[in-house]
Amino acid sequence: MANKVKEIWASGKVVVNAWLAIPSGFSAEVMAGCGFDSVTVDIQHGVQDYMSMVQCFQAMGAHPVTPMVRVPWNEPGIIGKVLDGGAMGVICPMVNTKREAEDFVQFCKYPPRGTRSNGPIRMVTYGVPSSYQKTANDDTLCIPMLETRTAVENMEAILDVEGISGVYVGPSDLGFSYGLVPKLDREEPEILKIYEKLIKECEKRKIYPGIHCSGWEGAVRNINMGFKLVTLLNDSGLLAMSARHHIGEVRKNSKGKA
Amino acid sequence: MANKVKEIWASGKVVVNAWLAIPSGFSAEVMAGCGFDSVTVDIQHGVQDYMSMVQCFQAMGAHPVTPMVRVPWNEPGIIGKVLDGGAMGVICPMVNTKREAEDFVQFCKYPPRGTRSNGPIRMVTYGVPSSYQKTANDDTLCIPMLETRTAVENMEAILDVEGISGVYVGPSDLGFSYGLVPKLDREEPEILKIYEKLIKECEKRKIYPGIHCSGWEGAVRNINMGFKLVTLLNDSGLLAMSARHHIGEVRKNSKGKA
Amino acid sequence: MANKVKEIWASGKVVVNAWLAIPSGFSAEVMAGCGFDSVTVDIQHGVQDYMSMVQCFQAMGAHPVTPMVRVPWNEPGIIGKVLDGGAMGVICPMVNTKREAEDFVQFCKYPPRGTRSNGPIRMVTYGVPSSYQKTANDDTLCIPMLETRTAVENMEAILDVEGISGVYVGPSDLGFSYGLVPKLDREEPEILKIYEKLIKECEKRKIYPGIHCSGWEGAVRNINMGFKLVTLLNDSGLLAMSARHHIGEVRKNSKGKA
Amino acid sequence: MANKVKEIWASGKVVVNAWLAIPSGFSAEVMAGCGFDSVTVDIQHGVQDYMSMVQCFQAMGAHPVTPMVRVPWNEPGIIGKVLDGGAMGVICPMVNTKREAEDFVQFCKYPPRGTRSNGPIRMVTYGVPSSYQKTANDDTLCIPMLETRTAVENMEAILDVEGISGVYVGPSDLGFSYGLVPKLDREEPEILKIYEKLIKECEKRKIYPGIHCSGWEGAVRNINMGFKLVTLLNDSGLLAMSARHHIGEVRKNSKGKA
Amino acid sequence: MANKVKEIWASGKVVVNAWLAIPSGFSAEVMAGCGFDSVTVDIQHGVQDYMSMVQCFQAMGAHPVTPMVRVPWNEPGIIGKVLDGGAMGVICPMVNTKREAEDFVQFCKYPPRGTRSNGPIRMVTYGVPSSYQKTANDDTLCIPMLETRTAVENMEAILDVEGISGVYVGPSDLGFSYGLVPKLDREEPEILKIYEKLIKECEKRKIYPGIHCSGWEGAVRNINMGFKLVTLLNDSGLLAMSARHHIGEVRKNSKGKA
Amino acid sequence: MANKVKEIWASGKVVVNAWLAIPSGFSAEVMAGCGFDSVTVDIQHGVQDYMSMVQCFQAMGAHPVTPMVRVPWNEPGIIGKVLDGGAMGVICPMVNTKREAEDFVQFCKYPPRGTRSNGPIRMVTYGVPSSYQKTANDDTLCIPMLETRTAVENMEAILDVEGISGVYVGPSDLGFSYGLVPKLDREEPEILKIYEKLIKECEKRKIYPGIHCSGWEGAVRNINMGFKLVTLLNDSGLLAMSARHHIGEVRKNSKGKA
Repeated sequence: MANKVKEIWASGKVVVNAWLAIPSGFSAEVMAGCGFDSVTVDIQHGVQDYMSMVQCFQAMGAHPVTPMVRVPWNEPGIIGKVLDGGAMGVICPMVNTKREAEDFVQFCKYPPRGTRSNGPIRMVTYGVPSSYQKTANDDTLCIPMLETRTAVENMEAILDVEGISGVYVGPSDLGFSYGLVPKLDREEPEILKIYEKLIKECEKRKIYPGIHCSGWEGAVRNINMGFKLVTLLNDSGLLAMSARHHIGEVRKNSKGKA
Repeated sequence: MANKVKEIWASGKVVVNAWLAIPSGFSAEVMAGCGFDSVTVDIQHGVQDYMSMVQCFQAMGAHPVTPMVRVPWNEPGIIGKVLDGGAMGVICPMVNTKREAEDFVQFCKYPPRGTRSNGPIRMVTYGVPSSYQKTANDDTLCIPMLETRTAVENMEAILDVEGISGVYVGPSDLGFSYGLVPKLDREEPEILKIYEKLIKECEKRKIYPGIHCSGWEGAVRNINMGFKLVTLLNDSGLLAMSARHHIGEVRKNSKGKA
Repeated sequence: MANKVKEIWASGKVVVNAWLAIPSGFSAEVMAGCGFDSVTVDIQHGVQDYMSMVQCFQAMGAHPVTPMVRVPWNEPGIIGKVLDGGAMGVICPMVNTKREAEDFVQFCKYPPRGTRSNGPIRMVTYGVPSSYQKTANDDTLCIPMLETRTAVENMEAILDVEGISGVYVGPSDLGFSYGLVPKLDREEPEILKIYEKLIKECEKRKIYPGIHCSGWEGAVRNINMGFKLVTLLNDSGLLAMSARHHIGEVRKNSKGKA
Repeated sequence: MANKVKEIWASGKVVVNAWLAIPSGFSAEVMAGCGFDSVTVDIQHGVQDYMSMVQCFQAMGAHPVTPMVRVPWNEPGIIGKVLDGGAMGVICPMVNTKREAEDFVQFCKYPPRGTRSNGPIRMVTYGVPSSYQKTANDDTLCIPMLETRTAVENMEAILDVEGISGVYVGPSDLGFSYGLVPKLDREEPEILKIYEKLIKECEKRKIYPGIHCSGWEGAVRNINMGFKLVTLLNDSGLLAMSARHHIGEVRKNSKGKA
Repeated sequence: MANKVKEIWASGKVVVNAWLAIPSGFSAEVMAGCGFDSVTVDIQHGVQDYMSMVQCFQAMGAHPVTPMVRVPWNEPGIIGKVLDGGAMGVICPMVNTKREAEDFVQFCKYPPRGTRSNGPIRMVTYGVPSSYQKTANDDTLCIPMLETRTAVENMEAILDVEGISGVYVGPSDLGFSYGLVPKLDREEPEILKIYEKLIKECEKRKIYPGIHCSGWEGAVRNINMGFKLVTLLNDSGLLAMSARHHIGEVRKNSKGKA
Repeated sequence: MANKVKEIWASGKVVVNAWLAIPSGFSAEVMAGCGFDSVTVDIQHGVQDYMSMVQCFQAMGAHPVTPMVRVPWNEPGIIGKVLDGGAMGVICPMVNTKREAEDFVQFCKYPPRGTRSNGPIRMVTYGVPSSYQKTANDDTLCIPMLETRTAVENMEAILDVEGISGVYVGPSDLGFSYGLVPKLDREEPEILKIYEKLIKECEKRKIYPGIHCSGWEGAVRNINMGFKLVTLLNDSGLLAMSARHHIGEVRKNSKGKA
């Protein structure tokens, strides 16, 4: 299976990414059918674990989306499992130093580049010839998150680590670490300056910056700044926004009846 | 626990109902927190079964919503199970005759009114005094669906069955049975005439007509016609609408970049 | 695997039966290890379905207990499934007439006695010689519930149905149908007279009467009356009783500190 | 999605069908990737229910196989649910009379042909134009099982029912009902004569006979007789045969060491 | 939602805590309805994981109990997940040194106190104003376990770590590390001396000592010693004790019949 | 329960081991019934997690096989959980140094040998006398994997670590780390030399070497070399091989019809 994220990036365009917090194959396939380029299962903050990730990946298999995952932590056990389980990209939270970035890449790659153990259970069937292991190191996207002041201070060292495909900004944690309110779609000049620098440093290295947004308006702003992957809120957020909107309109327009 | 649907109806107002097709306690609690009056787990057409219904009911327990369920069929086994599992209202599809309506009510009620078997496992703890069995026959809402030409022809006989609390219109099946395209929010005069008659006949009998809508606009129209319970699309529909809207806006506004 | 219930009955003794409402293999194995002779998964009023039954049966497989199930209704689909899934006895609720008893037995037995379809997936592995199908009609216990006034009136006709292994009394539903409060461990003379007759009629036919109790005291009383299978409350009831007892003692004995 | 079974039949060829008893999306996707034309989830005798069927269907979505299901019984609730859940063909056990066949077809088809209720949750997303409801009656395969002496006696009346796409032979139940040992791959002349007649009667009506086999040898024999769909054992049977074979060879060839 | 544990402690009283090893929302809600002040899901030794914890938390949502969790290890990934999933208190096993206690607190707290990542999925709905992130650092209980000789030696240094709300004693591991038999409700003088010191040191620092007990007798003794949180066995233990008691009484009192 | 692996090894024979990647109790019990000596749930590369391991262990409880597990990583949280959950042996991937081997053993053993925390939930019922904790350190098999060049270089230091019961070779990772293609059943002289040395060094220390094979031929070759535990492919591999074989034969022998 081709990695659509890589193709879109190679074409100079921006990836529109979905984010799954609901641990259900059914909501996953609904989301996967809506027109996203990639769909990320969030095992860190979502109500997800390895097994629900597998079900989400299976359910989105019929749709032309790249399956990705955010792992709960930079730990080799879970990183190996999500890759074997079908992730074509891994987003790793709280990568704050060059060393942590190197560890992350090493956990994601087969020898000699890294120490990933062989056993891609959902990618290869025993006894069926496959080139997976030959191409996996190139195809698997390693995307550390930049979301703390420390990470910003180490930005260039982190970006220099070979094997990194991009960087993902967590705006609420980033702001939090600068003493700001945790929210998405930030507009504080000090934060925007970080974004600008990040985009420029990524460009230099031909890697791709992504960011978590709270909807289409923020996504468009971030695309215009130069981000190459934008996430449009998570599924439970989209659901709640939509339900609240409809309820609000009914209550408002029913002349006191509802 | 008070039955909020009954209270709202008693006050002359309209119930705003949610509809769950996603088999996940997490999406259920998200929906239950959005401001609905009641939340219905759809075991007929939703990706739900008895066990996912229990999880949805448990997850919405902290919210002030009345748990209801649409059963897959007018069958005593499943009707008993959903009531024992915590449903305070049962919506039953394809009730087309007086006899079917009588069966349905009988399955829902304890003796002497009906033949429901005693064992309300999620409503009562063994050894703890409870009045559940004394009040359940009054509190449990029995709501047959009116969704075929046959049912329309038998409308008055069905509505006359003692123990029925209301009627729920399935607009797409109803239209289908009249040779029309299956869709919600109907405007064909022949269908609207049925709605008018149904509302009038319900009023006469002090029971309450409800209807499945595709969003707030249709719900408001139906409230204005006289419906007393409106469902605002199901959760997977709300999710897909919301996701498609955001993706569409991003693609449209990103100047060809996404 | 031998059917321990049949062996105990053949020896003239009484079966001590467990009742599972918690849909968890772990609580099932805890219960199965406590010393019961048989363990019944209650799909009717318990928070159980076919799949949780399979997990409970698997988890109790290491313990010397006979797996049984109470089905939600006298319906051939579920009766076939629980037998294929490993039940060695089926308790069927609300069997009120001879015809219903005949249907029930027919659903449980292979041809020529009945119409059960062949496919005992958890009893036989394909290609491994097995005598299951030859002995299943004899070994599978068919136990209709006697729990309504109608059933009492038809008692002898029901007990005459060939293939019935015993009868199971549901005291709360039985009382309910006579206008009494639904509870276990009944002492009303009119009910005790029914029990006496049932025990005598079962003895005549060499079949075995069982009954649902609310703990050991009621069970002992019923054993002394002549019942041959007693259920000691369900797992969730035992759990709640135990927890409430310990909490009560702590609060009472902690001198106002807790 | 095209119905591959219909295409293969239209081309004059034979469908090679898989049969899933293991309730796991992972084993389902392994099977779906092995080269079958269709994959049937067996809710009757398999360790499957509606929810595991959904997971199996989701997991096989990336593979070019037609999803089908064997329902536990000829009951409208479950037949509607499996169709809404994605089944493109329904195999129904124990269809013994013309009336039962008519019921079955009616449960499977939308008005005016039948009484299926509208709500194809996994086939259509709300608000997205789809022709599903227009083509479903033609595309959905209704396949009653012929597996009793009664069904054989009513063969022609059953096959005459409009809307039936084929017939599926259950050899073990069929033999059972004739007093023979329940097994697959039968060779008794009286049974082979039934097969011959069935194939001829199907040909006359341009419908397609299928049969359950115990492996490739039986399947080839049945193809040569004229069957148009062959099932090659179920997944748990294939797994056990394979494991037993390897263990046997190890024990045999390890010179007493293993 | 108020943190009931904090309120009880502030009032000078003792918290009566439940302990869940059974991975079922149903047993969780049964326990939560029995009168406990807090309910702890044990992911370390219980048959629990993150996903079963979520289901237990959802199911107890309707009851006035504080949800807590024992994590399997002092690891930031799982600590973040249980907090996002709704835990208002975290009990962490095997915290033996000041450094380990500091790590634990850091994993539990948002910046600037710690490094917890922002995304409290079950506590906050996107787009709905909430003060969760402002109050979480104060409200979340960080409770390291004291259960080894090393921890006892480091007791004061551990208790001095800012942000610790209390300490939880694991009596069986504690005894084990001193070469004693692993059991609850210890009475060895060397252990009681440790308890006394711990209680005194906690008092000094206005933090709260808790302890795992095997039932109400041990709990009362520990309350009298000065413990401020007592756990009354786990759910599976309560269930087994209760079932064994009833079986024992039936067998003893049935005159050899059962 | 006796540890069959230890008994077989003590008798000088070879253990035939199963490997479970399918997260289903049903496929686990099918495998457990096929004649293996031990059955290993693979949480590293299999589609398994802790909870599916518990279900697999429960389902194989009725069969005389030793339950083992491969953990995802050398991490104390999961190692404690699988042991409490019923594993009698732990296979740990990527143990490359003496230090890592010492850590691994320590995580597996109770004090004073190690730091495993007490709470063997599926091995002991509260209040029931048990010797588990006394014998667990001896009975639990600690089996590090030898699967990298580094591990080969440290072979003797690793094998010297007290408490190790054996070593498990991962042929594909081992080859990978030497720059070879990742596959099982290796025949490269440099690899065979490693095997020979490993077998000799194990013999010296009275511990047991095991190896992952791709079927019976490789297993027999490895037994003849001196390996004392052989794994015959995993369940999903056996299933796929079997299904592909039958499909292939049908297509080949049906004269173009299938």
